[in-house]
Amino acid sequence: MMIDTFPVPHFAVVFTSIRRPDDAEGYEQAAQRMLELVREQPGFLGVESVRGDDGLGITVSYWTSEAAIHAWKEHPQHREIRERGRSTWYQRCTTRVTRVERSYSYG
Amino acid sequence: MMIDTFPVPHFAVVFTSIRRPDDAEGYEQAAQRMLELVREQPGFLGVESVRGDDGLGITVSYWTSEAAIHAWKEHPQHREIRERGRSTWYQRCTTRVTRVERSYSYG
Repeated sequence: MMIDTFPVPHFAVVFTSIRRPDDAEGYEQAAQRMLELVREQPGFLGVESVRGDDGLGITVSYWTSEAAIHAWKEHPQHREIRERGRSTWYQRCTTRVTRVERSYSYG
Repeated sequence: MMIDTFPVPHFAVVFTSIRRPDDAEGYEQAAQRMLELVREQPGFLGVESVRGDDGLGITVSYWTSEAAIHAWKEHPQHREIRERGRSTWYQRCTTRVTRVERSYSYG
């Protein structure tokens, strides 16, 4: 699902990951839980997420402030799932915190 | 394919799009050509791209400067393909120009 653009400046967290091919236990449930939880966080604007057949995924979440991003990073349930992701589900992952300077939409 | 992180600050362009289900003529060839061409551009650092089975795609390209992003935006071949994308291949697309403030990698 694509979401609308937001007034600038705001912040985007770009999370790229490669899933392990072999260990999916609990992944879908945890991913769903994180999506529900993130929507409740103060300063959360929206999220767009895609995973390809080759295991590469990109998730971009949008936020009103860096403080909101930091609070989400420190959320106990998020911390727990992040640790599990690193130890179990992901071969590799990268998080980039960015400031959105401008945006254009078409269609 | 995931790429390495780069020293901050640098810039990321987040391009999200939804493909039309019905009109794919010329798309793969054009996408391939754009990937080749973007790699030749001054200031280009790398790109990560995923498209899901539902037609949603996220492509993130990384750049040393906003000037480099602007030059790519104005590249004649890129302009031509962008117009074709809007008129033919994409139902909807959004471009967000962002400044990468920090990044973390794992694995």
